[in-house]
Amino acid sequence: ERTSIPFVHNAKSHGKRGMTLEEDLNETNQYYLDRGKAVIHKKPTPVQIVNVDYPKRSAAVIKEAYFKQASTTDYNGVYKGFYVDFEAKETRNETSFPLKNFHPHQINHMDQVVTHQGLAFVIIRFSLTEEIFLLPFKQLKLYWDRMEQGGRKSITKDEIQSDGFALKLGLQPKIDYLKIVDHILPV
Amino acid sequence: ERTSIPFVHNAKSHGKRGMTLEEDLNETNQYYLDRGKAVIHKKPTPVQIVNVDYPKRSAAVIKEAYFKQASTTDYNGVYKGFYVDFEAKETRNETSFPLKNFHPHQINHMDQVVTHQGLAFVIIRFSLTEEIFLLPFKQLKLYWDRMEQGGRKSITKDEIQSDGFALKLGLQPKIDYLKIVDHILPV
Ligand SMILES: [Mg+2]
Ligand SMILES: [Mg+2]
Repeated sequence: ERTSIPFVHNAKSHGKRGMTLEEDLNETNQYYLDRGKAVIHKKPTPVQIVNVDYPKRSAAVIKEAYFKQASTTDYNGVYKGFYVDFEAKETRNETSFPLKNFHPHQINHMDQVVTHQGLAFVIIRFSLTEEIFLLPFKQLKLYWDRMEQGGRKSITKDEIQSDGFALKLGLQPKIDYLKIVDHILPV
Repeated sequence: ERTSIPFVHNAKSHGKRGMTLEEDLNETNQYYLDRGKAVIHKKPTPVQIVNVDYPKRSAAVIKEAYFKQASTTDYNGVYKGFYVDFEAKETRNETSFPLKNFHPHQINHMDQVVTHQGLAFVIIRFSLTEEIFLLPFKQLKLYWDRMEQGGRKSITKDEIQSDGFALKLGLQPKIDYLKIVDHILPV
């Protein structure tokens, strides 16, 4: 399934207003990896490669390719023996998070992860106010189901604040989400 | 880090001599997913995107991109609450598997996975004889270390046969590696 939505951030367009959520999370994961806290990586952007050029004495050049719809989430890995899986999303909305930011594939994937006793959650950033929240998938699923049953197509920030966990932006690590994960680990 | 080694299989070149190991494993993982046995996916091929064209009314076209060295392995996911991580490799050698098929990054990654109580292993296919083996990372590491200490740069098939587990090619699923994983799960 090809998609017209490119998942690649343009470094220039974000440069002036600070790092993207993805960049902050990548730095955080590198920090966790370096300190031996967890092994969590961003998955590569899925691309359908159509045409590749093999010039002599230099690297192969992909000449034609298309962005594909991801069938899973952005990040996964292992923490304290637990399988961890999450999706990161930013919005410029101020009072709610539109659920159309999630693809049904991703919801389905996180649902399967939880069924297999993995940990699934989303990290949501309200970019205008720089607020970041971790929302466990179980809660997200309730709002997704509400939408499917004809209810509102977004989660209000109030709902996220009460069902999720606020994440403060730090220096090292940037977004210490494992501190929250410790609270939601099964006992 | 750009690499000149394209990870993309040419469908035509493999068509006549059957499916590649990767195709068989992808089918197997789809089978596991459909039956609710496990959630294990192949990671997309990592690509460094340099230039994208956005034609009106149609999908964005990647016009210039390069293959990047993967920092992890091919496959990961969750099975019975365990984090599962593995790399798949084929060789046309008949009596041994050359260790140069693994990138040091991958060995390092699997080492970290095991440290964090994940399950790591490799699936090796001798393509000329269609023999497939699962070799737990712990064993692979011993042979990797032997090489680093000046020993042989490959694992003999005898060694793989005695340290690993043979996998028979089936119909549904194609390569039932979780049957072996059940034996190596920590208790
Ligand atoms: Mg995302
Ligand atoms: Mg491979």
